[in-house]
Amino acid sequence: MSDAGNVRPEQVSRISTWDYEADVVVVGYGVAGVSAAIEAARGGADVLVLERTGGWGGAAALSGGFIYLGGGTALQQALGFEDSPENMEKYMTAALGPGIDVAKVHDYCQGSVEHFDWLVAQGVPFKEEFWGEPGWEPPADQGLMYSGGENAAPYNTIATPAPRGHLPQMADKHTGEKGGGYMLMKPLTDTAESLGVRAEYDMRLQRLIVDASGKVAGVVAKRYGKQVHVRARRGVVLATGSFAYNQEMIEEYTPLLVNRPAAAIEEHDGIGIRVAQALGARVAHMDAIEVAIFADPQLMVRGILVNGRGQRYIPEDSYPSHIGQATLSRQHNEAFLIIDESALEQAQGTVSSSAAMRAQPPTWVAETVEELEAEIGFPAGVLQATVEVYNRHAANGADPVLGKKPEWVRPIETPLAAYDLRNHTGGFTLGGLKTDLDSRVLHVSGDPVPGLFAAGRCTSGVCAGGYASGASLGDGSFYGRRAGRAAAGS
Amino acid sequence: MSDAGNVRPEQVSRISTWDYEADVVVVGYGVAGVSAAIEAARGGADVLVLERTGGWGGAAALSGGFIYLGGGTALQQALGFEDSPENMEKYMTAALGPGIDVAKVHDYCQGSVEHFDWLVAQGVPFKEEFWGEPGWEPPADQGLMYSGGENAAPYNTIATPAPRGHLPQMADKHTGEKGGGYMLMKPLTDTAESLGVRAEYDMRLQRLIVDASGKVAGVVAKRYGKQVHVRARRGVVLATGSFAYNQEMIEEYTPLLVNRPAAAIEEHDGIGIRVAQALGARVAHMDAIEVAIFADPQLMVRGILVNGRGQRYIPEDSYPSHIGQATLSRQHNEAFLIIDESALEQAQGTVSSSAAMRAQPPTWVAETVEELEAEIGFPAGVLQATVEVYNRHAANGADPVLGKKPEWVRPIETPLAAYDLRNHTGGFTLGGLKTDLDSRVLHVSGDPVPGLFAAGRCTSGVCAGGYASGASLGDGSFYGRRAGRAAAGS
Repeated sequence: MSDAGNVRPEQVSRISTWDYEADVVVVGYGVAGVSAAIEAARGGADVLVLERTGGWGGAAALSGGFIYLGGGTALQQALGFEDSPENMEKYMTAALGPGIDVAKVHDYCQGSVEHFDWLVAQGVPFKEEFWGEPGWEPPADQGLMYSGGENAAPYNTIATPAPRGHLPQMADKHTGEKGGGYMLMKPLTDTAESLGVRAEYDMRLQRLIVDASGKVAGVVAKRYGKQVHVRARRGVVLATGSFAYNQEMIEEYTPLLVNRPAAAIEEHDGIGIRVAQALGARVAHMDAIEVAIFADPQLMVRGILVNGRGQRYIPEDSYPSHIGQATLSRQHNEAFLIIDESALEQAQGTVSSSAAMRAQPPTWVAETVEELEAEIGFPAGVLQATVEVYNRHAANGADPVLGKKPEWVRPIETPLAAYDLRNHTGGFTLGGLKTDLDSRVLHVSGDPVPGLFAAGRCTSGVCAGGYASGASLGDGSFYGRRAGRAAAGS
Repeated sequence: MSDAGNVRPEQVSRISTWDYEADVVVVGYGVAGVSAAIEAARGGADVLVLERTGGWGGAAALSGGFIYLGGGTALQQALGFEDSPENMEKYMTAALGPGIDVAKVHDYCQGSVEHFDWLVAQGVPFKEEFWGEPGWEPPADQGLMYSGGENAAPYNTIATPAPRGHLPQMADKHTGEKGGGYMLMKPLTDTAESLGVRAEYDMRLQRLIVDASGKVAGVVAKRYGKQVHVRARRGVVLATGSFAYNQEMIEEYTPLLVNRPAAAIEEHDGIGIRVAQALGARVAHMDAIEVAIFADPQLMVRGILVNGRGQRYIPEDSYPSHIGQATLSRQHNEAFLIIDESALEQAQGTVSSSAAMRAQPPTWVAETVEELEAEIGFPAGVLQATVEVYNRHAANGADPVLGKKPEWVRPIETPLAAYDLRNHTGGFTLGGLKTDLDSRVLHVSGDPVPGLFAAGRCTSGVCAGGYASGASLGDGSFYGRRAGRAAAGS
């Protein structure tokens, strides 16, 4: 087995000495872990965080920092965007399924405004500036952006579009060392420290420890090859991240992601999921994935995307991760961007966080669509028909086939070019432990596993299949807090 | 919880009296269960089968009876079809993934010829007649058929096409009471009985029983509301079927199948998976599904299938379940069959096992493609472009876009019609317990759960995502035998 290692629970009766003790033991010092630690400490618990790397941060600190929030947050209001919990829920229900955890999404939307205020209260800075260009991230320290295609078809017909990607203000955009993710994690870990939360580093989770009644009573960890026993008097919170880097789990649950992990860290080996499964914990949506497409939205939006048969399949002004998901999951990971010369030139003048693609020449250039079609290797007529139908409606500024917004609809002219975007995707896993609204890990019997809590990407959160940027830091921090509170109170 | 019920294991020490005892206890009397029972008995074990309904059969007895076998079976040879284990493996690898269990598929292909001979030796009858028309099943008692699109694109370019759907000869096609599935199960249960296998009916599995070492030592069942304890001296074989009828599991693992179970029985409630998960058993490919499209292949093959955007997406001569999967999983469950009047007339004269559709008039009829397009409600030009490109190549008898075989390629003429095939799919689940080649249930730690074996649709078998008709009875009987042998020897 590539990930061999016994994850069967240890019995308390077999532990002779405890190396560490705390009321609440949090495993993993990313956004879910720190949020749990803060709230557990505020709940009166003595808290110890175990982190397997040499420092706090996890995937969160390395990320862009998007937190998916809405329903009328102070930042949304300050920037003039209307939103409500109900409107947010409509979008999330449509975009993040099928199969979303209805209760969890409702709960998350209802609590979103308060959660934003909480983040601000912990010292997370948000700049009151909106970024409205197509792209993965803002180019600088803007605080709010559309991050889930809320303003693209079909979601703009289902709920009133509102930007919900909230970004902590970066301290140093250029070095990247103090990007949005860092600026989220720094104040949170400072807060935790000020509350007396202890942290031990280089501690790798091995197994859980259970008492005679079956309650989780601690963890076995490994530090520099030596076993360490940590007692949790009230509960253990798992916040260990996804399984994007566990090759075996990827093969068995999300084979589409084999050899293409992205936006994840190598520590995401699924250990938190496995130790809980060994106790009979339930998992959900293990096939769900976030998928990025490595391409420049400023280019995509100005052309048309076609699949391996030369057909359009998604509005090109969609949230790029929806393009990635549609491409990998439904189009055999094959995409081609068709774009004409004038659109290419126009894009050159725009700002993008992923402009590297433009520095590359297109894969093919041609004087006519027929010629381009032959160069790419499409059967005769396929791409011509696609462009013809697109242009027919584009002449009227409309895209009745896929609903791309009129501002981006313009006939494809000649000369034109194509970028080969086959195998240009990557992503991370969204499935994991099934938890309730108090972040209690549920047993396959339906009731909670006593003493065990979890949050973040080792759980199945608000996303069942779809994704919006910020959903991971969002539900990780939101249900991390719940986990901390519940563990402290148990 | 909709499926509330404690599935946590019971300790042997708490059982005061055993209601039944056997060396090997098999749970579920479908094809996996009976195959396990036979081989366990031949391995010298005293065998008891627990079945929750009032009689043997399971989903197998109600099915058409397809068993997916190849590599050069006696039946393939008698009917003049060449095949080899390597060729079969090429097809299965391409068609049943991504993410197939490579070792299992290889093993299954290598053992396939022997397994066919074994079925014959148990008395399962196969008529030496091939059925080559498009369809789900043969119209009568023919014994061999293409059942996985082996002769359709893209698989016909990857491996040499060979029919592998082996069908037990029906005794009474008309009443349906002695169909292919019955004729598979009857000789197998007769064999089991002749070997001294005992069976107890109306026994619903509740939980497993484990001894102090963690070995599975029996099961708790319920009979007419009363708890029954069954001791298994050597091992327990789970053969309880899929989770197609467990609403909660469907929502959490395969939301695309919500409210559309098909080709499954209500007893398929996932209990075997859950009792094993409670012991820390590993699961795999929980999102994988078989999908049927409720439409007549004889009609589909003579027209073109388009998605909700009016685009073709699959060769219409594909195995119908591949059409179903592509439609549900990749086309938002939207399909329309476009067919012209002369093709409709031609189809009327053919034989089909699903001809009910023809008795219905098409949803729309029109004099021109443009008119049909408007009637369906497609944006102007979309369907016209699709038909134009199709006809352009069909004039030369080719389909370079999707690779439909020349024999079915003919230009779409006028007048023409369309059938609305939206929401015309249903299916069952393919994911389940991860087992090794000896059908031992694997723990999330990687090693087997002592004393626990499983086969059939409560396991993740040879299918990871794709499907071929007969794969379920195929791997169910194949790995059922392995489970029986391994349990008897443990």
